[in-house]
Amino acid sequence: MKIIECPPRDRWESLLRRPVKTVADIEETVLRVFNAVRAEGDQAIRGFTREFDGVTLDDFGLTDEEIREASANVAPALRQAIGQARSNIEKFHSAQRSDKVQVETMPGVSCWQEKRPIEKVGLYIPGGSAPLFSTILMLAVPAAIAGCREVVLCSPPDKEGKLHPAIIDTAAQCGIRNIYKVGGIQAIAAMTFGTAGIPKVYKIFGPGNQYVTVAKQLATAYDVAIDMPAGPSELLIAADESANPAFVAADLLSQAEHGPDSQVILVSTSTGLLNKVSEEVQRQMRYLPRADLATRAMAHSRFICVPDDETAVELVNAYAPEHYIICCERESYYLEHIRNAGSVFVGNFTPVSAGDYASGTNHTLPTNGYARQYSGVNLDSFMKSITFQKITAHGIRDLGPAIETMAEEEGLLAHKNSVRVRLDALKAGSN
Amino acid sequence: MKIIECPPRDRWESLLRRPVKTVADIEETVLRVFNAVRAEGDQAIRGFTREFDGVTLDDFGLTDEEIREASANVAPALRQAIGQARSNIEKFHSAQRSDKVQVETMPGVSCWQEKRPIEKVGLYIPGGSAPLFSTILMLAVPAAIAGCREVVLCSPPDKEGKLHPAIIDTAAQCGIRNIYKVGGIQAIAAMTFGTAGIPKVYKIFGPGNQYVTVAKQLATAYDVAIDMPAGPSELLIAADESANPAFVAADLLSQAEHGPDSQVILVSTSTGLLNKVSEEVQRQMRYLPRADLATRAMAHSRFICVPDDETAVELVNAYAPEHYIICCERESYYLEHIRNAGSVFVGNFTPVSAGDYASGTNHTLPTNGYARQYSGVNLDSFMKSITFQKITAHGIRDLGPAIETMAEEEGLLAHKNSVRVRLDALKAGSN
Repeated sequence: MKIIECPPRDRWESLLRRPVKTVADIEETVLRVFNAVRAEGDQAIRGFTREFDGVTLDDFGLTDEEIREASANVAPALRQAIGQARSNIEKFHSAQRSDKVQVETMPGVSCWQEKRPIEKVGLYIPGGSAPLFSTILMLAVPAAIAGCREVVLCSPPDKEGKLHPAIIDTAAQCGIRNIYKVGGIQAIAAMTFGTAGIPKVYKIFGPGNQYVTVAKQLATAYDVAIDMPAGPSELLIAADESANPAFVAADLLSQAEHGPDSQVILVSTSTGLLNKVSEEVQRQMRYLPRADLATRAMAHSRFICVPDDETAVELVNAYAPEHYIICCERESYYLEHIRNAGSVFVGNFTPVSAGDYASGTNHTLPTNGYARQYSGVNLDSFMKSITFQKITAHGIRDLGPAIETMAEEEGLLAHKNSVRVRLDALKAGSN
Repeated sequence: MKIIECPPRDRWESLLRRPVKTVADIEETVLRVFNAVRAEGDQAIRGFTREFDGVTLDDFGLTDEEIREASANVAPALRQAIGQARSNIEKFHSAQRSDKVQVETMPGVSCWQEKRPIEKVGLYIPGGSAPLFSTILMLAVPAAIAGCREVVLCSPPDKEGKLHPAIIDTAAQCGIRNIYKVGGIQAIAAMTFGTAGIPKVYKIFGPGNQYVTVAKQLATAYDVAIDMPAGPSELLIAADESANPAFVAADLLSQAEHGPDSQVILVSTSTGLLNKVSEEVQRQMRYLPRADLATRAMAHSRFICVPDDETAVELVNAYAPEHYIICCERESYYLEHIRNAGSVFVGNFTPVSAGDYASGTNHTLPTNGYARQYSGVNLDSFMKSITFQKITAHGIRDLGPAIETMAEEEGLLAHKNSVRVRLDALKAGSN
């Protein structure tokens, strides 16, 4: 690992730069699939499932038998682990419920804000080598707490036309009835337009490869909302002499194994710590089955030495990491000054994998610097807030003239008139 | 006004359909401006200001003198009205502050969620005939409460290269220092990329014409967030015999005067009320200076008669109106069953214009049916939430095995190892 010593501030931007996405060649494929699904519905989906997933399916839904079979095929230890994670995620996301906000801004002028669930949401769960049942927990649990009426889950079938039992079982445990064996662009298109077999939704959640990412972006052009824009996963660790180099190395590697485009950054005030972590990375890497992926990600990792904690904190905020581990003596200083981060892991015994699976926080987080302006998925992601107001005769008498003055100045005389007719009626009534 | 009597459900979709946006021809212009601003910065902005606004400006910023002059040129009655509105908006948006959410999901596993301001936000305020100082209040007040560090405001100059005094004065009263005389696509591009003269921001708020709308959409491709997608303004009124026909007519007309593409819908269980409102609309229209706009919007308004309150409520939720007035006997029934709406106005003395200007609620609201999945602008629009977790040695001992089991099943062995190294160290330490 090459250590970068005290980079000057004007080098930060290039040092912290993320790889640029190139999506132009993907967009054409995504458009083609969207147009076909929009025009031909399920028939198009069958075609793309054959083309992209290499399997012929007549029906995308699951039978009751498939669900029963799945639950029998999940090892009890795994079921128990998933149950533990679900319980923690439920606790943390239930605590995020918020009360109605109500204020009388003036006598007779009541304003309030209430949240309501988004009625129809779609969850996309990628397929591939790893069955991401953990992502189902992260999306289905808050959707259920929010009270979403209709939760649709799409996940690509394997070559036998099946879903992994842990996917089916976890979804069923979370109360999802609408599970479909449809993946990739065609799944996003199906949830965007709706087909005879798959319902249209109002908001789509979940990770995916570049095709899915571009498809979700295109879905927003058809009035569907998405959880957030996506990019490769990231971890930044701020650590000093109080950190355990073996733990830090293990966390960096857990990030790196996500793939060669994973971003891994270690920031420290201690060159000693940076060197020790570097050695530990080499040592631990040998035992990893996905070492090839990790090696490629570690190759463009950045180990940065900074002169003091203040500089470290500024650098972290400039990067706005998705995952941020703090293992520093002055922990509270680091915590207090966080301005931009997705999820923060504090202290030596808090690996990112805890939040990935089971501590209770959500693992669907803003990447690509989006932590500057986006929240990770949370209970509010499945709700929208509605405002209300009720004004009494007394209230409009007091507030009305201000509205009239402002409306007149903005040249909106029918707005003014809507107050005037009420004030006139009240005047007539009081005579 | 043509009254539609008890339309069958299978006609609702076509009856409630909004006009389709056609943006293809606009996109080319927007792309051209974005590319030029990105490459040439302020020089490009000067060129487009000449081209689109017909005025030559060397400097886009305001001088202290311009700010002083503006405050002297706003009538005291208007200043007072704006002050009243600001105070109400401040009260309602301050009440939306939320506490840190903290939970121990298991012994030794602490999770919490905190909100932080988005550091840099941009507010776009359209120019044209009406100076929308009310929109400044709606955006700048919550930005200040949230604690956004840098608030940038752009608004197009008039032919003399000036902004309306009420725009300048309201912005200054709200504490905004960065006010720029730049409008349209080039303003959105400037805040997206940043130029020598105008800072880049992380999220852009505010209304605008079709060009601004498409420009904001394009900005999201360059990692900037926006408040919400936009469409023409809308009002749906549910009213029965308990409503005052003159008030209802005045509210419909206040919506209609926004422009010919404004959406106006009246739903009632009473044909009598529908007829009376129709007559009142004709009567009041005569006195409106913007009658031409209102007439065109009213021409495609829909007066719908429904058999009962239950059907009315279902129809409202199917439409998901931006503004929704309830003037019905069974007010609480209507309130209880709202699932999709932007802002709701309750009772005979609550015109939409109250919320447009001064009651305290926000007037930046989801149109185009987006109330199904988007909130209107509120305090949280200027913040993002960050999650945290801290696990003790005891906590990871208890939770660790579940993480290991799940990570192994997902094939992520470096994730498993990041727990393993900690559990091993604890075991070694306790021996």
